[in-house]
Amino acid sequence: MIDWKVSESGFDSSKNTSNGNKYLLGNGYMGVRGTLDEFEKDGYVAINLAGIYDQVGDAWREPLNAPNALYTYAVVDGVKLDANAFAPKSHTFTLDYRKALLTRESVWDVNGVTVTVKAERFASMPSPHLLGSRFVLTVDREAKVKLVAGIDSDVWDINGPHYDKVVGSTLDNSIKVVTTTHESADHVCVAEEIRTNFKAEAGSFEEPLKTLKTYEFTAEPGVEYVLDKLAAVYTSKDTDEFEAEAQKLAYDKAQAGYEAARQENIDMWESKWKVSEIIIEGDDKAMEATNYSLYHLHCIAPRHADSMSIAARGLSGQTYKGAVFWDTEMFMLDFFLFTEPAVAKTLMKYRIDTLQGAKNKAAGYGFDGAFYAWESQEGGFDGCSDYNVTDVFTGRPMRTFFKDKQIHISAAVVYGIMKYVRYTGDTSILNEGGAETVIECAKFYYSLLLKKVNSDKYELHDVIGPDEYHERVNNNGYTNRMAKYTFDAAAEIAAGKCDLDAAVVEKLGKQYDLADLAAKFADAAEHLYIPQPDPKTGVIEQFDGYLKLEDCSVDEVRSRLLHDKEYWGGAYGVAAHTQVIKQADVVTWLTLFADEFDDDTLLKNWSFYEPRTEHGSSLSACMYALLACRCGLSDWAYPFFMKSASADIKGGGKEWAGLVYIGGTHPAAAGGAYMNVVKGFGGFSIKNGEVCVEPALPSNWTRLAYNINYGGKLYHIDIKDGKADITVS
Amino acid sequence: MIDWKVSESGFDSSKNTSNGNKYLLGNGYMGVRGTLDEFEKDGYVAINLAGIYDQVGDAWREPLNAPNALYTYAVVDGVKLDANAFAPKSHTFTLDYRKALLTRESVWDVNGVTVTVKAERFASMPSPHLLGSRFVLTVDREAKVKLVAGIDSDVWDINGPHYDKVVGSTLDNSIKVVTTTHESADHVCVAEEIRTNFKAEAGSFEEPLKTLKTYEFTAEPGVEYVLDKLAAVYTSKDTDEFEAEAQKLAYDKAQAGYEAARQENIDMWESKWKVSEIIIEGDDKAMEATNYSLYHLHCIAPRHADSMSIAARGLSGQTYKGAVFWDTEMFMLDFFLFTEPAVAKTLMKYRIDTLQGAKNKAAGYGFDGAFYAWESQEGGFDGCSDYNVTDVFTGRPMRTFFKDKQIHISAAVVYGIMKYVRYTGDTSILNEGGAETVIECAKFYYSLLLKKVNSDKYELHDVIGPDEYHERVNNNGYTNRMAKYTFDAAAEIAAGKCDLDAAVVEKLGKQYDLADLAAKFADAAEHLYIPQPDPKTGVIEQFDGYLKLEDCSVDEVRSRLLHDKEYWGGAYGVAAHTQVIKQADVVTWLTLFADEFDDDTLLKNWSFYEPRTEHGSSLSACMYALLACRCGLSDWAYPFFMKSASADIKGGGKEWAGLVYIGGTHPAAAGGAYMNVVKGFGGFSIKNGEVCVEPALPSNWTRLAYNINYGGKLYHIDIKDGKADITVS
Repeated sequence: MIDWKVSESGFDSSKNTSNGNKYLLGNGYMGVRGTLDEFEKDGYVAINLAGIYDQVGDAWREPLNAPNALYTYAVVDGVKLDANAFAPKSHTFTLDYRKALLTRESVWDVNGVTVTVKAERFASMPSPHLLGSRFVLTVDREAKVKLVAGIDSDVWDINGPHYDKVVGSTLDNSIKVVTTTHESADHVCVAEEIRTNFKAEAGSFEEPLKTLKTYEFTAEPGVEYVLDKLAAVYTSKDTDEFEAEAQKLAYDKAQAGYEAARQENIDMWESKWKVSEIIIEGDDKAMEATNYSLYHLHCIAPRHADSMSIAARGLSGQTYKGAVFWDTEMFMLDFFLFTEPAVAKTLMKYRIDTLQGAKNKAAGYGFDGAFYAWESQEGGFDGCSDYNVTDVFTGRPMRTFFKDKQIHISAAVVYGIMKYVRYTGDTSILNEGGAETVIECAKFYYSLLLKKVNSDKYELHDVIGPDEYHERVNNNGYTNRMAKYTFDAAAEIAAGKCDLDAAVVEKLGKQYDLADLAAKFADAAEHLYIPQPDPKTGVIEQFDGYLKLEDCSVDEVRSRLLHDKEYWGGAYGVAAHTQVIKQADVVTWLTLFADEFDDDTLLKNWSFYEPRTEHGSSLSACMYALLACRCGLSDWAYPFFMKSASADIKGGGKEWAGLVYIGGTHPAAAGGAYMNVVKGFGGFSIKNGEVCVEPALPSNWTRLAYNINYGGKLYHIDIKDGKADITVS
Repeated sequence: MIDWKVSESGFDSSKNTSNGNKYLLGNGYMGVRGTLDEFEKDGYVAINLAGIYDQVGDAWREPLNAPNALYTYAVVDGVKLDANAFAPKSHTFTLDYRKALLTRESVWDVNGVTVTVKAERFASMPSPHLLGSRFVLTVDREAKVKLVAGIDSDVWDINGPHYDKVVGSTLDNSIKVVTTTHESADHVCVAEEIRTNFKAEAGSFEEPLKTLKTYEFTAEPGVEYVLDKLAAVYTSKDTDEFEAEAQKLAYDKAQAGYEAARQENIDMWESKWKVSEIIIEGDDKAMEATNYSLYHLHCIAPRHADSMSIAARGLSGQTYKGAVFWDTEMFMLDFFLFTEPAVAKTLMKYRIDTLQGAKNKAAGYGFDGAFYAWESQEGGFDGCSDYNVTDVFTGRPMRTFFKDKQIHISAAVVYGIMKYVRYTGDTSILNEGGAETVIECAKFYYSLLLKKVNSDKYELHDVIGPDEYHERVNNNGYTNRMAKYTFDAAAEIAAGKCDLDAAVVEKLGKQYDLADLAAKFADAAEHLYIPQPDPKTGVIEQFDGYLKLEDCSVDEVRSRLLHDKEYWGGAYGVAAHTQVIKQADVVTWLTLFADEFDDDTLLKNWSFYEPRTEHGSSLSACMYALLACRCGLSDWAYPFFMKSASADIKGGGKEWAGLVYIGGTHPAAAGGAYMNVVKGFGGFSIKNGEVCVEPALPSNWTRLAYNINYGGKLYHIDIKDGKADITVS
C-alpha cells in the first residue's frame, strides 16, 4: 500500500519552480504553490486566485496572485534563515496528499547553534478563503531570535504588476493588506491573525510592499517556539464586504485555534477520499500516481462557487493565462461527474453563464450563435492572442489560429452539458440556460456549414482540430463529428424531446422558431460529412488531404529542427507538411464514439496514428490509453496511462519558453488518468441506465477498487481475478 | 524623333547579366542573350529555346539553352581577345531594335598593335531556326592572327546540366553538334557554316564540350578580315530530320550569303514595324521605351508555330522555369490581337492544346474540369513547385500556394480565348477545341463553388488572387469576377449562342449534357458572390477580412524587414497581416470591367489601393496606369506607364535571389505599356463593332499615332490637338 505522501530530502533551489507545482495546495478558491515560508517573488511564490483577472497594457491578461499571507522567516543571532541564500544542513519537504498538508523541516547551523524550523500549511477546503500555517522553531543552544511574519505584497507575476495600489496595516496581532488592480480596480484583501505560544518583544515594520510584524526573544534550548497564522483572502468580486469578511474569518479561526482549522480541513479531505480514492493492488506506483492526480483535481474543484470552471494549469499560477480550455469538459469532467456531480454542474454552469461572451466572439467573426473562447476568462472573454508563439529565428510573434479556427471548443461545451444531463438525469442545467447554450452552439456551426454547390454533403472548412500542428484544414474528422453531436443535441432540444420546464419551453419558443431549428439541425446532422475508414486500410483521414502529406516518423521530424525551441506547427514548422501530429486527434474522436466503429477499425487507427503522434500535449496519452483499453489491449494502454498519471508527480516537464514561465500542473492529464483507470482498465460505463463494469486490468494489477456516484447512490466496485464485485450504499 | 537604338560605350563585366536581357535578340523560336562573341558560360551566354524543357533530378524543370553557335574569338600575336579577361581600350555595344541587329565594336591594344573587332548578329525572323553573325577584324600593324570559331556546348544552365551527351563534328567549313537531353532524350542540333573572305591555314580542334575551327593568318594593316557564320538550330521535337534540316538550312543560307539573310530579316522586321510602331511626339523617351518594349514582344512572338505561348521572361533565359503564366493572356495578348491576330490565335491555341494537362491538374486536386498550370510547360505540365521561396532565416524551402490556390489562371485562359473570338469575330478557335476548353474551365470553377448552407450566394474560398502576399483568402474579388466571366462564357457556349460548326455542336452534345451545363453555369454566374463597393467609402474589399488587417504604409512594412531578401508574403511575411499588397488586384479587376462601375468608384479604389501597393511585380504599374486613364487622369497614369515601358530598357532590376539568377526581360510589362499607350492614352476600344478612339494624352505629348488591325483592315489612328484622325487601309 502507499503512504499518500510525496517528499524529498535536501534543498535544491533549481527545483523551486517544479516543486511549486508538485507540492501545490489548493481548495478551488486559491492555489498555493509549494514554496517555503521565507521565499519571496524570486522563489516563485504564488497564491493564485480563481476567476479574477487583470491586464496591464498589451501584455497577456492573466489571473491574480494574492499577496503572500504565509510569508514568515526567522533571524537567529543576526542570521536570516532563508534556504535560497543560506543552505540548511538538512531539509525535508513533504506533501501528505491524503490530508492536504504541506510540511517542511529545515535545520541550519548558525555559528554553532543548531536551529530547526518545522512548518506546515494548508489551504482549507471547508473554508475556502482560509489559509493556515504553523511555524515552529527550536534551538539547541541559547540564541537571539527574531521571527518576522506578515504579508508580502511584492508578488510574482508573469505579465504584471497587477496592483496599482497596495495598502498595508497592522494592529496588535492582526495584519491586513488591501490591493487595487490595474484594469478594473478590483480589490484583493488579505487579513491575517498571528498567534504565538511565547513571550517576545513585538514590533512591526514596513518594507516596500511588505507588511510585517516582528517577535524578538531569547530562545532556550529544547523549547518549541510556535507561530501560527490564520489568514483569509477575499476579493471585491466575492463580496462588497471583502475587508470585513476577511478580517472576521481570520479572527474567528484564530480564536478557535490553528489545530481546529487544520483538523476541519483534514476531515473534509478524508470525506472526499472516502468516495474518490482508487485502490490498486500489485502496482503501488500506479496507485500513488493516480491518487496524487486526484489530489490535484480536488485542489482545484470550485466547490465554493456554483458557476466556475478550472483553468488548464489549475491554480498553479498564471501560466496559460489562467484560462479555461476544452480540457475541462473533455478531460476533467468525468472525475467530478462520477464522484461529485455538484462540481460537474458548477463547471458546466460556467459555460452557460459565459454564453454572452461566446455569442460576442461569434458575432465578431461574422458567425451566428456561440463560439466559445479558446482560452476563456471571466464572462467568456477570450484571452487567446492572435499571436501565441514567438518565431525563434526572427523573434517576431507568429500569427496562430488557435482562437479563430479551433471551433471544436463549442462542441466540447455541448458535450459537457449533455453528458452531465444524460449521466445525472438532472435536466435543471438545461432549464437554467443549458438548452439555449446548446442551441446557440448549434447555430454557430450551422452558420459555418459549407456545401459544395455540386454536392449534397455539408462540410466544415478552415479549422484546427485537436492536432494543432496542422492549421486551417478542411473537414477535420473530430471537429465534424463533434459538430454533428451538437446538431443532434440541439435538434433534440428544439424538437421538445428533452424534459424541460414548461416556462423554459415557452421562453425558448419566443426566442426561436424551434420547429425550424429542429428541422435545420436534423438536416445538418444528417448531411454533415464525416470522414469514413478507408475500405482497404481502415484508416480514417484526419482531415482532407492529410494522407497526401509526407509520411515520416516523429524522430525524423524532430531531427529536422534547427532550434530546440522552434515551433513544430504553424505554416512552416517541421511537422506542418508531414503526417506527424501533436496529439490524439482521430483517436480522440474514436475514443469518444467508439461504439460507432468495429474493434478492428479502432485498432487500425490506433496503430496508424500512434507512431505519427508526438504526444506534445498532456491531452494525448490518455486518449491512446483509453482506446487501447477499448480494444482489449490493457498492456498497450499501460505506458500511456502512466504517462498521464505521472504528469505532475514526476515533476519537471516543460517549464520555460525563453524567459516566460510556462510550467504548472496538468489537471487534464490527471482527469485523463482517472478516466483510464475507471473507464479503461476498470471498464465502467452506464448501459441502459445501469452501472456496467467490464474490467481489463493491466497484467500486474491484482486488484482495482473504485467508487462511482450514480443516481444518488454510491457504487463500490471491487475488481479481483477478472471479476467485478459491485456493492451499493 | 528617336534613332531606334540602345547602346553603350565602355566595357563593364558587371553588366553582363543585365545586358544579356537589354540587348536580347529573338525570333520566337529562340532568344539570344546580348553577350559578346567570345563569351562562355561564365559570361551568361544563352540561346534559349522556346517550348522544350528538361529536368535533372529534383531540381526545377526549365527550358533548354542550345549550344552556342555564335562562339567566336580572335587570338592576336598570341593574346586572346576576351573582353572579360582583357579590357578593350574602347568598346561600344549597340542594338538597333528597328532592324533587330546587335553590333559590337571593340578595340584592343595588343602589345602596340591596335586590333579592332566589329561584329554583328541577328536571329532571323523570316527563318526562325537561323542565326547569323559577321565577325570583322582589322589591325593597324601586321600581326599574327588566329580566329577560333565554332560551337560551345558548355552552356550556362540554372538547373542543369541538361545534356547527357554532346557529339560534335567538323567537316571543312561545316560544324555540327548534336546533344541528348536528360529527361526525355530529346536532341538539339546546331549546324553552322563558316565563310571567310581571306586565305588562312584552317584547322579544327576540340576542347571539352567545344567544337571549333581555327583560321590562322598574318593580318595586314587596314584589311577587313571577315568571318561569317550562318547557323541553324533544330530539335527533335521540330522534326525527325532535325540534323538534316539544320545542315541544309545553314548550308543554303551560307551559299546565298550573309548579306542576303541579314537583309531578309531587316525587311521582315520593317514590315512588322510598319504596323506596330508607335509614334509619340513631344516625348522621345516614351516613344523609345514603348517601341523598345514592342521590339521585345516581336522577339518572342511564336510566329513559327501554330500552338505556342510565351514564357513570363520571354526567351531571355531559364528564369521562372521558362514557363507560361497568366501574363500572356492578361498582359501580352492585346498587342498581338491589335497588330497581328494570327499570333494571338497561336497563343490561345497553346492553351487549348494543353487542356489535357489542365484536366490532369484539376483531377489531381480532386476537382472537375480544367485547372491550368500556374507555370505551364509542354503539354500544360505545371512547372510550379510547392516550395517556391527559400526562408532566408532558416534556409528551408517555404511551402507556397501559387500552384494550388491561384485558381484565377483558368479564367485568364477563358478571357484570352473569348477576347480573341470577340475581337476577331473568328470562331474557328472555338471549333478547334476552344469551346471545350471554356466549358472545362467553367466545370472547374463549378466544382469549387461553395455555398453556406444558410445563404444563397456562392463563394470561392481558400484562393490566392493577383496579390500573392495574402495567401489562402476567401472571395478574392478579382478571382470571383473572373470566375463569373468564365461561367457567363461557358453558359453562352453551352446554350448554343456561339456560332459553332454543326459538327462541333454535335460532338459537344455527345460529350456533355449541354442544357444541364448551360443552366448550371447560368445559375453559378447569377449567384456567385461579387464583393461590392462599400456604400460609404466606395472601396471594394480585396477579399473577406482584408479591411480588418493592419492599415499601414508600404514604407512602414518595408521598415519591418529583418533581412533585405526576406519574403513579404507567406504566412508570416511582413505584408501578410497588413493591407499592403504586392500588386494591382482589385485595380486589375476594375480595369478589366470598368464599365460595370461608375468613375467615382473606380477613382476611390485607385486612391485607396495605390498607397497600399508595393508594385513588387512588373504586372502592377500598367493596371494602375490604365485605370487612371479610364478616370481621365492621364498625368496620374504617366509615371506608372513609364515604369512599365521602361522595365527592360532601363536594365538592372532584381537579378539574383541568393545565388539563383532570376533576371530576364519583362514581356508582360511591355504588353502593359502597349495597352497603356493604345487603350489608355490612345483611347482605343471597339464599341458596337466599330473602332472607337477617345484619347487622353499626357500633357507633354503633342501627337500619338498607332495602327490597329481590326476586321481585316488596318486603321491608322493619328491623334493631335485632342482630336483623332482615323484612316483605313
